[in-house]
Amino acid sequence: MPDTLSRPAPQTAPAPQTAAAREAALDALSALLGQRLSRKPADLDHHAHSEAWYPATPPDAVAWPETTEEVSRIVRICAAHGLPIVAWGTGTSLEAQALATEGGLTLDLSRMRAIRALHAEDMQVVVEPGITREELNAELRATGLFFPVDPGANASIGGMAATRASGTTTVRYGSMRDNVMGLEVVLADGRIIRTGSRAAKSAAGYDLTALMLGSEGTLGIITELTLRLHGQPEAITSAVCAFDSFEAAVETVMATIQMGLPMARIEFVDEDVARAFNAYARTDMPEKPHLLIEFHGSQAGVAEQAEAFGAIVAEMGGADFDWAASTEARNALWKMRHGAYPACLAWRPGSIGLVTDICVPISRLAEAVAETRADIRAEGLVGPILGHVGDGNFHAILLLERDNPDELARAKRVAGRMAERALAMGGTVTGEHGVGIGKRAYMQAEHGEGWAVMGALKAALDPRNLLNPGKLVPETPSPDARA
Amino acid sequence: MPDTLSRPAPQTAPAPQTAAAREAALDALSALLGQRLSRKPADLDHHAHSEAWYPATPPDAVAWPETTEEVSRIVRICAAHGLPIVAWGTGTSLEAQALATEGGLTLDLSRMRAIRALHAEDMQVVVEPGITREELNAELRATGLFFPVDPGANASIGGMAATRASGTTTVRYGSMRDNVMGLEVVLADGRIIRTGSRAAKSAAGYDLTALMLGSEGTLGIITELTLRLHGQPEAITSAVCAFDSFEAAVETVMATIQMGLPMARIEFVDEDVARAFNAYARTDMPEKPHLLIEFHGSQAGVAEQAEAFGAIVAEMGGADFDWAASTEARNALWKMRHGAYPACLAWRPGSIGLVTDICVPISRLAEAVAETRADIRAEGLVGPILGHVGDGNFHAILLLERDNPDELARAKRVAGRMAERALAMGGTVTGEHGVGIGKRAYMQAEHGEGWAVMGALKAALDPRNLLNPGKLVPETPSPDARA
Repeated sequence: MPDTLSRPAPQTAPAPQTAAAREAALDALSALLGQRLSRKPADLDHHAHSEAWYPATPPDAVAWPETTEEVSRIVRICAAHGLPIVAWGTGTSLEAQALATEGGLTLDLSRMRAIRALHAEDMQVVVEPGITREELNAELRATGLFFPVDPGANASIGGMAATRASGTTTVRYGSMRDNVMGLEVVLADGRIIRTGSRAAKSAAGYDLTALMLGSEGTLGIITELTLRLHGQPEAITSAVCAFDSFEAAVETVMATIQMGLPMARIEFVDEDVARAFNAYARTDMPEKPHLLIEFHGSQAGVAEQAEAFGAIVAEMGGADFDWAASTEARNALWKMRHGAYPACLAWRPGSIGLVTDICVPISRLAEAVAETRADIRAEGLVGPILGHVGDGNFHAILLLERDNPDELARAKRVAGRMAERALAMGGTVTGEHGVGIGKRAYMQAEHGEGWAVMGALKAALDPRNLLNPGKLVPETPSPDARA
Repeated sequence: MPDTLSRPAPQTAPAPQTAAAREAALDALSALLGQRLSRKPADLDHHAHSEAWYPATPPDAVAWPETTEEVSRIVRICAAHGLPIVAWGTGTSLEAQALATEGGLTLDLSRMRAIRALHAEDMQVVVEPGITREELNAELRATGLFFPVDPGANASIGGMAATRASGTTTVRYGSMRDNVMGLEVVLADGRIIRTGSRAAKSAAGYDLTALMLGSEGTLGIITELTLRLHGQPEAITSAVCAFDSFEAAVETVMATIQMGLPMARIEFVDEDVARAFNAYARTDMPEKPHLLIEFHGSQAGVAEQAEAFGAIVAEMGGADFDWAASTEARNALWKMRHGAYPACLAWRPGSIGLVTDICVPISRLAEAVAETRADIRAEGLVGPILGHVGDGNFHAILLLERDNPDELARAKRVAGRMAERALAMGGTVTGEHGVGIGKRAYMQAEHGEGWAVMGALKAALDPRNLLNPGKLVPETPSPDARA
């Protein structure tokens, strides 16, 4: 398998992009946007890196559109001059999806953050892409509804859609795939299309919504989303419990799924994460693998579920079973979980994190985690493991000394073997972080000829490769991919 | 809006298809398949019509492949000679999706009905496309698992995937979109691709699985499916109750959804359907609108849900609330529901049914049903209405005298106005029956430029338009649709 996590060699520019063409495009954009087009070093630098370890790659300029029509005009200008366009939400993606690795324009959608319509009676909301999930849920609080997808970061809804995000609540409420009903999208030629509808389901043709979700800005720019909302549960109960082995923890999860208990969240953290929490948050968790679980439902329902879950835990030898009855205790629990990344980084002071994720069938999860942990240790690395265990999805946070090429090389080997392991087990090289440039070299191995098909679809909708070039699809579809 | 339900004018053949080319293709297919290629009139006639009212359109030949490799070889032969290919499961589709309206080869997949693998611990099964949903569930019975999608007809799983089927249980378990994890697909050039994986979720590139679901055989031939299974519920409780008005019935459904009660099924039938049931099944239902409901869960859970639902029904003035406690009573209830189509046909002896479906946001459902019913009466037609009311999806079964062009014209007008109404309300022209040829003329109205995008995707994967020509997409994508 290729050495994927290295930054790929610079690609050829997507279109014959001369300095003169670039300047002409930027002049036209500047005339359209005024101060909302910037070439200031501080703005370029802010959009040059995301939360992940990738080297900085500043764009040529940053634009802050305010309307769909403006996005369309920007795209037409860029298309006329062959200038690449990369959409930007909050910059929290983990595989460099929002980085302008081939230069061009970063389209920062943070000024498009309005709620365009609330359809409370249909449990739907229509939003612009720049609103973040926390902002949206704050706005929804009084309605009794909420948007459940929770990738951890306070990402923009548009970015979550573009990367088909999932997270702690996916085991119950699904991912963006399940909770986006429709989109407004600006295509590579500036046309504006609407996908999906406000109906709960449809059999009216190709599922363009699903095609756009996870396309990472390579097929179009999302300018509006119709989201499915859920009722705030009447009752919530959370618990944390320790296990002697992660096998016992995983077996507990499998038994819980097979019993049909509707977990709203079920998260695994290994003993290293527990140690990092203890150091960072001054908790006193046993330094063992833990499960963090939550049930949503009626008072009677969650009580029944908690009791059934407690019986499984006891059977599997779980201990220190601690129900967080109060809202405060529950918030503290999930704040801790969401703080795992900084906690782990702080655990090895000064380190950078190479975070990678895979997803496997749950029957293979214990094996996948065990082999990954053994591999991390064999390479002499420090790498806490945690994950959305109900989905068979886990992350390794490989803590690396900054500017240590040897550690980086070892970490890439570990991440590469994780991806191979996922495929050998019938899984996927990324459950939620996406492809970007980091997982692109594994796409052929995962999809075979299907990757060429993705290239053919990209070529059909963006023949000049203007939208987020260098990401996700093969650089140039082979001629036979289109026939 | 166009007169969509008429059979469209014959399309130009998808490729320059001469009689000599057709004969050469059929000779080559005959050499490959022997007796499993037929040109016998009885076989052609069997594949010339589906359950719906469309005129008979026999193919040139029928092939019964037995392996994926054989499907690939058949497609390569057809591609070499420009012979159209239409996949066939059980022929239960309602918009002529499986009819060879432009001639060519019908690919009958009924000999590919094996279960290729059962992964009980992951609640997954891998099947060939020809297995029907009832066969599959019979095979699964001993495992404690089941496949929930239930469109009524005992359709093939491959056909259900190709039309993105849904049905009575979609409100709880989702449609094919939610329950197909991966596919094996033979493309228009004979290449075999695999989409998806056995992982619960993935962010690894374009969602080719979702693109194929609902593509009605126009993008590829599905030869294998990996399905998500669910645990057979510990307890099931069903009920039927009558309402004085359908508005009260719909309000009951909305209140139930908003309370978050997890209905496994919630079906609406109007007073005409109740009358038809009484005549056909010798029941004695009040001749009023009814809801049929089912809850799945633990003993305590369904008891709690039934009680909560009963309180809502009482508040909305529902009556004759009858819980089907026994398995027999429950089976009788759903058998009655699934028999609605023959019951309605028998209610007007000798009639044919023009069945059409739309799906709207639930807040608009009562209005959509009321306007549709008024329209049916204004046209002097008989047309019972029933539907998957939890999804906002309903059907009108327009009962027409055979060979009465005037009634057919009036029925088409009603169906056309239903489609317009759905779009005006933010819904879709078909919630589950699909496009085929019957809803194709509404695609432009529903999707706008998005329909041209569908055409561009079709052209990218099947540039010679060999796969199910004349269905779903625009006949020839306009040149700008590809740029």
